[in-house]
Amino acid sequence: MANNDLAYTVFERQQRDRGIDLDRVKERIKGFTVETPSWGYADSGTRFKVFQQVGVPRDPFEKIEDAAQVHRLTGACPNVALHIPWDRVDDYDRLRRHAAELGLGIGAINPNLFQDADYRFGSVCNSDPAIRRKATGHIIECIEIARAVGSTDLNLWFADGTNYPGQASIRARKGWLRECLADVYAALNPGMRLLIEYKPFEPAFYHTDLADWGMAYTLATALGDAALVLVDSGHHAQGTNVEQIVAFLLDEGKLGGFHFNSRKYADDDLIAAAINPQELFLIFAQIHDALDETTDSGARRTAERIAYMIDESHNIEPKIPAMIRSVLNVQSQWAKALLINRDELREAQATQDVLAAEAAVREAFECDVRPLLRALREEQGLPDDPMTAYHASDYPERIRARGIGGASW
Amino acid sequence: MANNDLAYTVFERQQRDRGIDLDRVKERIKGFTVETPSWGYADSGTRFKVFQQVGVPRDPFEKIEDAAQVHRLTGACPNVALHIPWDRVDDYDRLRRHAAELGLGIGAINPNLFQDADYRFGSVCNSDPAIRRKATGHIIECIEIARAVGSTDLNLWFADGTNYPGQASIRARKGWLRECLADVYAALNPGMRLLIEYKPFEPAFYHTDLADWGMAYTLATALGDAALVLVDSGHHAQGTNVEQIVAFLLDEGKLGGFHFNSRKYADDDLIAAAINPQELFLIFAQIHDALDETTDSGARRTAERIAYMIDESHNIEPKIPAMIRSVLNVQSQWAKALLINRDELREAQATQDVLAAEAAVREAFECDVRPLLRALREEQGLPDDPMTAYHASDYPERIRARGIGGASW
Amino acid sequence: MANNDLAYTVFERQQRDRGIDLDRVKERIKGFTVETPSWGYADSGTRFKVFQQVGVPRDPFEKIEDAAQVHRLTGACPNVALHIPWDRVDDYDRLRRHAAELGLGIGAINPNLFQDADYRFGSVCNSDPAIRRKATGHIIECIEIARAVGSTDLNLWFADGTNYPGQASIRARKGWLRECLADVYAALNPGMRLLIEYKPFEPAFYHTDLADWGMAYTLATALGDAALVLVDSGHHAQGTNVEQIVAFLLDEGKLGGFHFNSRKYADDDLIAAAINPQELFLIFAQIHDALDETTDSGARRTAERIAYMIDESHNIEPKIPAMIRSVLNVQSQWAKALLINRDELREAQATQDVLAAEAAVREAFECDVRPLLRALREEQGLPDDPMTAYHASDYPERIRARGIGGASW
Amino acid sequence: MANNDLAYTVFERQQRDRGIDLDRVKERIKGFTVETPSWGYADSGTRFKVFQQVGVPRDPFEKIEDAAQVHRLTGACPNVALHIPWDRVDDYDRLRRHAAELGLGIGAINPNLFQDADYRFGSVCNSDPAIRRKATGHIIECIEIARAVGSTDLNLWFADGTNYPGQASIRARKGWLRECLADVYAALNPGMRLLIEYKPFEPAFYHTDLADWGMAYTLATALGDAALVLVDSGHHAQGTNVEQIVAFLLDEGKLGGFHFNSRKYADDDLIAAAINPQELFLIFAQIHDALDETTDSGARRTAERIAYMIDESHNIEPKIPAMIRSVLNVQSQWAKALLINRDELREAQATQDVLAAEAAVREAFECDVRPLLRALREEQGLPDDPMTAYHASDYPERIRARGIGGASW
Repeated sequence: MANNDLAYTVFERQQRDRGIDLDRVKERIKGFTVETPSWGYADSGTRFKVFQQVGVPRDPFEKIEDAAQVHRLTGACPNVALHIPWDRVDDYDRLRRHAAELGLGIGAINPNLFQDADYRFGSVCNSDPAIRRKATGHIIECIEIARAVGSTDLNLWFADGTNYPGQASIRARKGWLRECLADVYAALNPGMRLLIEYKPFEPAFYHTDLADWGMAYTLATALGDAALVLVDSGHHAQGTNVEQIVAFLLDEGKLGGFHFNSRKYADDDLIAAAINPQELFLIFAQIHDALDETTDSGARRTAERIAYMIDESHNIEPKIPAMIRSVLNVQSQWAKALLINRDELREAQATQDVLAAEAAVREAFECDVRPLLRALREEQGLPDDPMTAYHASDYPERIRARGIGGASW
Repeated sequence: MANNDLAYTVFERQQRDRGIDLDRVKERIKGFTVETPSWGYADSGTRFKVFQQVGVPRDPFEKIEDAAQVHRLTGACPNVALHIPWDRVDDYDRLRRHAAELGLGIGAINPNLFQDADYRFGSVCNSDPAIRRKATGHIIECIEIARAVGSTDLNLWFADGTNYPGQASIRARKGWLRECLADVYAALNPGMRLLIEYKPFEPAFYHTDLADWGMAYTLATALGDAALVLVDSGHHAQGTNVEQIVAFLLDEGKLGGFHFNSRKYADDDLIAAAINPQELFLIFAQIHDALDETTDSGARRTAERIAYMIDESHNIEPKIPAMIRSVLNVQSQWAKALLINRDELREAQATQDVLAAEAAVREAFECDVRPLLRALREEQGLPDDPMTAYHASDYPERIRARGIGGASW
Repeated sequence: MANNDLAYTVFERQQRDRGIDLDRVKERIKGFTVETPSWGYADSGTRFKVFQQVGVPRDPFEKIEDAAQVHRLTGACPNVALHIPWDRVDDYDRLRRHAAELGLGIGAINPNLFQDADYRFGSVCNSDPAIRRKATGHIIECIEIARAVGSTDLNLWFADGTNYPGQASIRARKGWLRECLADVYAALNPGMRLLIEYKPFEPAFYHTDLADWGMAYTLATALGDAALVLVDSGHHAQGTNVEQIVAFLLDEGKLGGFHFNSRKYADDDLIAAAINPQELFLIFAQIHDALDETTDSGARRTAERIAYMIDESHNIEPKIPAMIRSVLNVQSQWAKALLINRDELREAQATQDVLAAEAAVREAFECDVRPLLRALREEQGLPDDPMTAYHASDYPERIRARGIGGASW
Repeated sequence: MANNDLAYTVFERQQRDRGIDLDRVKERIKGFTVETPSWGYADSGTRFKVFQQVGVPRDPFEKIEDAAQVHRLTGACPNVALHIPWDRVDDYDRLRRHAAELGLGIGAINPNLFQDADYRFGSVCNSDPAIRRKATGHIIECIEIARAVGSTDLNLWFADGTNYPGQASIRARKGWLRECLADVYAALNPGMRLLIEYKPFEPAFYHTDLADWGMAYTLATALGDAALVLVDSGHHAQGTNVEQIVAFLLDEGKLGGFHFNSRKYADDDLIAAAINPQELFLIFAQIHDALDETTDSGARRTAERIAYMIDESHNIEPKIPAMIRSVLNVQSQWAKALLINRDELREAQATQDVLAAEAAVREAFECDVRPLLRALREEQGLPDDPMTAYHASDYPERIRARGIGGASW
């Protein structure tokens, strides 16, 4: 018996003994997909330096080709998010077909509201109504692009904010933001969703107009059911309990999606789960908890429609391998969180047995899910080890022909 | 001409030249009052040690006597907040009359939901319904006490939370919290308000059921107009922009009150504005901005009804002087924030002149408001320097007779 | 074949295939011991409440009995740390013999410099020379107790600090601290070590005299070779890279010991590795890196002499189980960190292959070390699952006879 | 009597009554200079966008012209720091003479060790010895440039670090850093100083080789007396007591200089003292405390030789006005800290009178020093209000001819 087979056999027994239904676990892992971002394949960096890499895609078509590699190897990334204008093309239907031919769909559309010189003092929160109209117009253009490429999610991240006390009226800007969002919401296609992101700081250094989940939630609630909150793992003050925010938003029916990445300090945009992987595990534990609701609760319905996306900015590491690693890390924590014995957990919670409850969660984290994921990949006809398969393929060599100086921020 | 008179004359000219209407400033300072907490006169400390002081009040009546001293000297503290059961007495009407005779009213009533052995795993979020009922009952008892003492505000701070991942169901506890709040809300007297406080951690170290303003806001909004959010200056993660939260809540009509104190690290409960006084100034700048609205806006009406309270835990410093200092510091920042030239500010904001806008705010902070506050105290028949007046009075000596071992947490 | 045996077999193969020498791993796990603190068996809590538990030891002798249970079940805790005066007894030799009869030695001696009323404004940094002498005297008394009980390590944690800017002269206090430490150092027995702890805040809220590793390091360096730095996992600002501090101190030959616990926020004193277990893993990775030095380097010699200790304050969870869990968690991360393939790591580091280097570390963390630890316990004649064995024993029931109201802070 | 004269008269009386010797205050303000950075006049921004401004200098000569304006208006900035290669010119003597003709000297030389493609994995800590040699060579080239331009300070900021656990050997890199520093130190001119900066994160996101003051101090101490620590206000974890680090380094004789800027979050590089001005005041209070030593102490001698520098990155605000504002803010806090009545402070500290000691410091902060600074400027023949004078001059208009697209990072 091959090593891995034996490892899986042992894993299977271990989980059976723990009372875990592995069929359900496998089904939920197979059903889990995470969108990769077109800009994650391009050059990016810090304010100090963008280290250009050889082989970076030169246009949106090549970005999609890279994204297709990640999906080919992991089977978990059937969609690619676009960023406009970085991914602006003349013929969006051609882009859509290019993706489709490579087995991909187009995921969320992300407007850019921070790189135009006009946005120096804000986009939709700018005190100049002409600039607000321009920004709103750009978002509405993105809705049209979404229609053209068959996307149903519009992600809104606003870099708007100020750098100094007094620089602007916080309440006036809030009003403008609300107006813009109302216009955008009215322009949505039926079935389309507005995912509203928040971030405490950077690039604004005194106040960011949408600074935390509460602000995004308040605005999304005022808009209506199609407006939801987008949680980026790196967009919280140090010491924030992110999984609690996730649970709260699930309970309120307002969690729309995630941007995964990791950080030790600020919004470092590192490979997801590279730093403190337990945090992502605990976030997923909250989601599985909602998915496991036996009644047709709002939390369950909300959890079922979450959009999972990666949003990273690889500064020094090679792009495609970093993306593969991110997907695998996210998948690992998703799988681990499925191994929590919920009956045991509920029982321990009901009897206020702190250590037994903690153990029910921790023991799932301690499990090594690699045999399971390998077995699943085998079932799905995927390479045993996507990273090795990538390096063994001719793709890394082929893209070197793109040279240096590809697409960038 | 006395030094101070001359200083005030110069101050008056300076402000007139800056275009500030000092009559309006004075009126708004005179109208500003801040509640002191009965427990702020008692012994308190850290988990490592409570240093007992000589002269600490031995019962609620003596606490009110101390609070009356602070009001006598500052003229700014006509109300004293009570904490039940710390301030439980047989005859609340007698307590009310005792306060009234000393020129005080009773401010907010604060239930204690963290010191009973039953609350080891939570009060209103406890998985045991009997404990939840007990906690809810205690809060409703506090409403009755409020009725008896003539108080209209009920402050709710829940220490509820968990110490370990998995220890409890975050969403189940949220549901119980909502149920409790609904029961409490239904029991409110007409005209009474429910002020809901939030705190990120301590005493709970993994998750706190009401961790941030967004959670308090969501629950308060679901309850109705009489439920509002209470902002404690020390209850935020490092790097939170508190004045933005204040502006946001004002704009949403959901800001109910403040607990003032200061901190450099966690919830240190130091004398208000002792650390980073600019922060309190900027909070007040947002409030004055709302109060200055010329239309009868929701933000203005909300600002007009804010309850200002001190919540501190003096560990090493003498109690009454620390409270006087806190009141004076709060008053100073309130006054400084009134010296912002709003026309200049609006003009600079409208033209996106970052440095002029910043200057309009900063210059108010740079003003020395001590001549103004001394002049105002003179107008009101108050001592020129409340701290000196306190030390010159016989009160510090008189209370020494109380000895050591007074009321404590 | 029993499940566990099979799991171990698979684990063994997995590690062999990864190129890990399991004999060396086992040897290093067997050689790893962690001291438990006498006060960790007593009641403790937050400033808001100490929830008393049934069965808490009533005196130092009973604390040692509890510590002996933890060692009996885990085989990893042969020493117990004492805290004076909490563990003051008339006859220290009797205490030592009591421990020895239970198979324990006495670990570090910890003076208490924060609970006497005299220490309100500091102990060794107090501006009053009489109080400084008293504090120094108490530490020297602890050296005598160390002699009496056969301990070789003196841990110094100073709660000294101030709450307000200006309250004291930071530099004067630094001078007094240095003088005290010099006196203490001179009084050390030959072979004894001084482990100097640091902490950024709490109970002092403006400045703590020994706030960070750099201050502890500077003072320890000035004293001499027997003075070393003690790292408490919870005593860092959010976002500090603790493993780097560990590596730096190892390299400088000044790392003396650890206080293990975990936290999400401040100094929460939770069960070690309950929150973000990766951090402890990465700390141990640095230590194994030093222990693996092939030359007789200062880093290796320093690593070989590290004192590993637990310092926790269990607020809501049962004491002995929480201590068992802490020991097991620490042991797990110690074991995981041994599974890093150092050859692979070095190779990847040498070629600047970021993802390969990251993988070499991450893969060790992903391993499930429970089969290994169970196998080791079997080899050592220890119970398969210490927690289950504890609950199955009559000890939990026996100590209930102690009643409520045992030893406390 | 003019308003300002009267304001100054009142200020003078106020300070005399407080026991402050204004002649000494004035002398110490006049003696205070702060270096401005050449790169602070160029375009800069965040990773998301550099907003280019009209009129930005196109070369080092124009940068020096802008710096000369700041000095002309404030009288406080006689030196300008250079950054190599940003300020590389063919003829350094010509640059020096250009500065001299404008009344300026050249301040610190700052090597750039982060923008070359070779530095992707570090400069002096790179595992590739050729890159380390290149980096060391660049620093030594900067020493030669220092010689050529008459500068005596070399500032070293290393962006070196890693993004992932395991990416590199922390201890090996520390060794390489030490070697490089030793080579650099050996190459210093007599009388030249090495100022070593630290930073916790950015651009490195897992570990930064020189992460905190303790690391910079340890390395500087090993090098010798000419190596000192450089404190950048924004390079600390949230909640760090920076003034204590300043006091500690003064006491150890190892404080070499400052980079001033302010931040609310990470290293935001905002105008100095725009956020939390009290912090800079408290830093200066420690420095004046050392300068006031009556004996020829090491702390005093160290304080006397501190290099004060601004290091900011103005993203949205106009460059020269932002620099003028920074200088004025720094000067204001320097002046306020001089108004602490040290006799009162010492007395209060000696008697452990917490509130009196706090008052002695706070009251200085509450003073409005603008009349003093205006009077001093008048004495020195400087414009009453440097900002107004700048806007009234033809310089803003003249530099518009430079167009857009000037020097940048």
